[in-house]
Amino acid sequence: MSNVSNDVLISEVGPRDGLQSVAITMPTADKCRWIDALVSAGVREIEVASFVPASLMPQMADAAQVVRHAMKHDGVTIMALVPNRRGAQAAIEAGVHKMTVPVSASEAHSLANVRKTRQQMLAEVKEIVALRNGSAAQVKIEVGISTAFGCTIQGKVDEDEVIRLAEAAVAAGVDEVGLSDTTGMANPAQVRRLFARLQAALGAKAGAAHMHNTRGLGLANCLAAYDAGVRTFDSSLAGLGGCPYAPGASGNVVTEDLVFMFESMGIHTGVDLEKLLEARISLAAGLPGQPLYGMTPEAGLPIGFKQEHLND
Amino acid sequence: MSNVSNDVLISEVGPRDGLQSVAITMPTADKCRWIDALVSAGVREIEVASFVPASLMPQMADAAQVVRHAMKHDGVTIMALVPNRRGAQAAIEAGVHKMTVPVSASEAHSLANVRKTRQQMLAEVKEIVALRNGSAAQVKIEVGISTAFGCTIQGKVDEDEVIRLAEAAVAAGVDEVGLSDTTGMANPAQVRRLFARLQAALGAKAGAAHMHNTRGLGLANCLAAYDAGVRTFDSSLAGLGGCPYAPGASGNVVTEDLVFMFESMGIHTGVDLEKLLEARISLAAGLPGQPLYGMTPEAGLPIGFKQEHLND
Repeated sequence: MSNVSNDVLISEVGPRDGLQSVAITMPTADKCRWIDALVSAGVREIEVASFVPASLMPQMADAAQVVRHAMKHDGVTIMALVPNRRGAQAAIEAGVHKMTVPVSASEAHSLANVRKTRQQMLAEVKEIVALRNGSAAQVKIEVGISTAFGCTIQGKVDEDEVIRLAEAAVAAGVDEVGLSDTTGMANPAQVRRLFARLQAALGAKAGAAHMHNTRGLGLANCLAAYDAGVRTFDSSLAGLGGCPYAPGASGNVVTEDLVFMFESMGIHTGVDLEKLLEARISLAAGLPGQPLYGMTPEAGLPIGFKQEHLND
Repeated sequence: MSNVSNDVLISEVGPRDGLQSVAITMPTADKCRWIDALVSAGVREIEVASFVPASLMPQMADAAQVVRHAMKHDGVTIMALVPNRRGAQAAIEAGVHKMTVPVSASEAHSLANVRKTRQQMLAEVKEIVALRNGSAAQVKIEVGISTAFGCTIQGKVDEDEVIRLAEAAVAAGVDEVGLSDTTGMANPAQVRRLFARLQAALGAKAGAAHMHNTRGLGLANCLAAYDAGVRTFDSSLAGLGGCPYAPGASGNVVTEDLVFMFESMGIHTGVDLEKLLEARISLAAGLPGQPLYGMTPEAGLPIGFKQEHLND
């Protein structure tokens, strides 16, 4: 394995964001094989589960088991989504390195997604921080601002409010704040503008770009975020994903295409594309009948394409 | 129809680049309906046919008829591809406004595509210019440098050679020179770099970006080209297209997604997205069983999305 530091970090969210959006409950063993294949390909951060009541999301009932399996891999940051203090407690007990707490910029989406207002979610974030601070575990906390670029329920989202929410999350004690295009409404001009503002407001605590590919703009938006200085990108193998509580929200940026874009630009991801394409095959086996997105897997790698830095 | 000048020009290439890549020969009436639908949506430049021997490309046997139909529309630039002097003669007789001559940056692709070396193609370009100059018609000539970003046959393409070819085409008397990612191998860093060089070398004669979406980078590459100052973009409704003589080359940038990207950024295309989505429906009827690409048509336009400038 390469010890070269990479230029960008690909944060794979498929096992969480992808699986929450499909009707199939993938067997635990298949999830573990998928995570193992991602790690083999060089993925160094994976959101493996969501700690939510199994009654609401049976796909995530094995979250603790999946986390425990994933934690066996050295050098990989294992993340989980937690919507509240109870989920955070379970995630800390399972041993995650990092928790993502979703806070909606849209009040309407907040109520639909977590049945709380934005202010109530910020109060929940404070409780999660207090819980973490009172535990022995060294768990990082990231807030992801959902619907930061627009909401399918309320429409436009005010950019000033996004920045105010991000600042409030930092004031509440979280380690970083990313921006999510939950509904696939972002455009590159907006992405550059909003991430530039986020970085001006939060400095090193400005976090990941979580882009969806709903209208095909996923990679263009990631390019725009990169231009604005973002270096961590959420994406999903085969573009799985969406939000069950945001009508019309569909798949995440396709990890295969995102890695191909960066690597072809000479921006190192640390991810071996050939092995990533193999990971996709193992995913397809675990999700029969599910549509898989991505152009690079269909076209294959171009003639003469090499990732020489992976052999360092 | 709006008289507002648009920020970018969408140059639709589907009736030429798209149809040359499918096994189906679309009836002339269907082609005409498709072109009419594009014009109704506000598309102002359309490459409607290729003047090549019908024995080689039966899909294009009705090129003159299609051109004559398309020419009935006022205010729309009607283009055709011509690979040689004979094609140019036919295109001028049919009455086109503008001809595109493909000149490959890759010697291997040049031989496969037009059975001529690059030097022989430049000689052909000179003959086409002489023919045009000797005719009464006011026909513009554009050279499109094929495989400018890489070639599936020879692999890497030297950037200096691309610029030298572009300069040679201008010296031969053409009006503009664009760059084509025939094989879908371009990346945004390369696109910015090469278009910046093209503009430095050719000034106002630097032409369109013709991007493919083979590995999903089409829109990101168009964004990069826009950043580099390009204002004319070739694309294809439903992402039809490819090159029959470049193995593995697949569809063009999807017009629907490209227009959505620009319009959502506040960059005016003059194209009405709702009408463009209707044009797609008429296309699907004319090409039964053909895969149509594009995410925007699948997702629909976002809530609250309006193109107010179209109503000026």
